[in-house]
Amino acid sequence: MTTKNPLLWRYATKLFDPDAKVSPEDLQYLVDSLVYSPSSFGLQPWHFLVVSDPHLKAKLKPISWNQPQITDCSHLFVLCARTSMDAAYIERHAAHIAESRSMTSSKTDAYTQMMISNVLGKSEDQRADWMQRQVYIALGFLLSACMHKGIDSCPMEGFDKDKYDEILGLKEQSLTAVVACPVGYRSKSDSAAALKKVRWNESDIVEHL
Amino acid sequence: MTTKNPLLWRYATKLFDPDAKVSPEDLQYLVDSLVYSPSSFGLQPWHFLVVSDPHLKAKLKPISWNQPQITDCSHLFVLCARTSMDAAYIERHAAHIAESRSMTSSKTDAYTQMMISNVLGKSEDQRADWMQRQVYIALGFLLSACMHKGIDSCPMEGFDKDKYDEILGLKEQSLTAVVACPVGYRSKSDSAAALKKVRWNESDIVEHL
Repeated sequence: MTTKNPLLWRYATKLFDPDAKVSPEDLQYLVDSLVYSPSSFGLQPWHFLVVSDPHLKAKLKPISWNQPQITDCSHLFVLCARTSMDAAYIERHAAHIAESRSMTSSKTDAYTQMMISNVLGKSEDQRADWMQRQVYIALGFLLSACMHKGIDSCPMEGFDKDKYDEILGLKEQSLTAVVACPVGYRSKSDSAAALKKVRWNESDIVEHL
Repeated sequence: MTTKNPLLWRYATKLFDPDAKVSPEDLQYLVDSLVYSPSSFGLQPWHFLVVSDPHLKAKLKPISWNQPQITDCSHLFVLCARTSMDAAYIERHAAHIAESRSMTSSKTDAYTQMMISNVLGKSEDQRADWMQRQVYIALGFLLSACMHKGIDSCPMEGFDKDKYDEILGLKEQSLTAVVACPVGYRSKSDSAAALKKVRWNESDIVEHL
C-alpha cells in the first residue's frame, strides 16, 4: 500500500477478510492513537471498546443494519462519549495534570475554574453534543492511524445507538455509543476497493485568504 | 521529531515561531488531508479556509480570546460546516459519484434515496449538528497530518463564531466556522512543549471485549 498515497488507498471497506487479524502490536498502535487523541482542554470525555468476541459481534450485527463488516472485521472499535460531566470530573482532571507535572494545585486553580465555567456554562444538551464532537476527533485519529499502518477500516454511524448502549452496558457507566469502526483487512472480493474516490474539487472547497 | 512517538511529540502549541513558514509542498499535504477526509456517505458537508494574510489574522485575533497563535502561526486553518443540506445537494453528490465512476445514474438511485431519507429525516438542528460533527473528523485528519509531517498545530474552539462568520463572509455562503487550527512551528520559548502529556490510564478508558 505504501506505493500509493495513503489518503487515496483508504476507503470505507465493505467486505473484510474474516481470517485476517490485526497483530497485537498494530492493535496497540491503534489504541494509542485513541488514548493520545486531542480533546477540548484535554478533558477526554470518552471511552473506547475494542470488540473481538465473535458472540458479541454477532449480537451487534442485527442492530447495525446487518452490515457484514461488524462480524467479519478483525476488531470492532466502538467509540463512546460520556453522557455527563460535572465540576468533580474537571477537578479530577486538573488534579491529574498537577500530579503528572509535579505542580502544586494552586498553579492550576485559575485554569480549573476557567474549564469549569466553560463546560458548565453550556446547557446539558450542548454539553452532551460537545462531548460527542470530541469523539469524532478520536475517530479521525483512529482512521488516520489505520491508514498509516495499512489497516482497513469502515467508520459507521448507522447502528441502533440505544440498543448498543443496552447490550454493551454503557448507560449505567454514563456513556453512550457514538460511532462504530470495524478494522481489519479488505477481502479480495470487495469491489468497492477499486472504485474511484469521489471528492468535490479542491478549488470548490478550499479557499486561500 | 522522528526519534519520538509522534503522538507524544504533538501538543497544543501555545507559542509559534512567527518566522517559520510551512512550505508549499507541506501545505498541499495538509490541504489534501482535509479534501480526502472521510465523512458520512462521503457527503463532505464542509469548506476550508487557509488564512495567511497578516491583516486578516490580526482582525481575527481579538475575536479568538486574543490568543497569539492566531497571528504568529504560519497558516490559520478555519474548518467550516455547511448550515443546510437539501435533496438537491445530495443529488448533486450522487451525480458526481455516477460521473466519476462512469456509472449510469440508475445504479445510484436507490442509494441516493437512502441518503436523502437519512439526511432529511433529521430535524434541522440535528442535521446542522451532524454536519459539524463531520468537520471534527476532518480536524482529526488535519492534526494527524501535521503530526506526521513534524508540523505544530493548536486546535481551537475558543473563538467568537458569529464574528468569524461575519468577517469571513461565511453566512452568505450558508457556511459557519466550527474550529480554528493555527499550524506552523513551535517557538523555542514555548515552555508548554516540554510539559508531560496528561492522559487517563489506558486501562481506565479502553475495554477489550
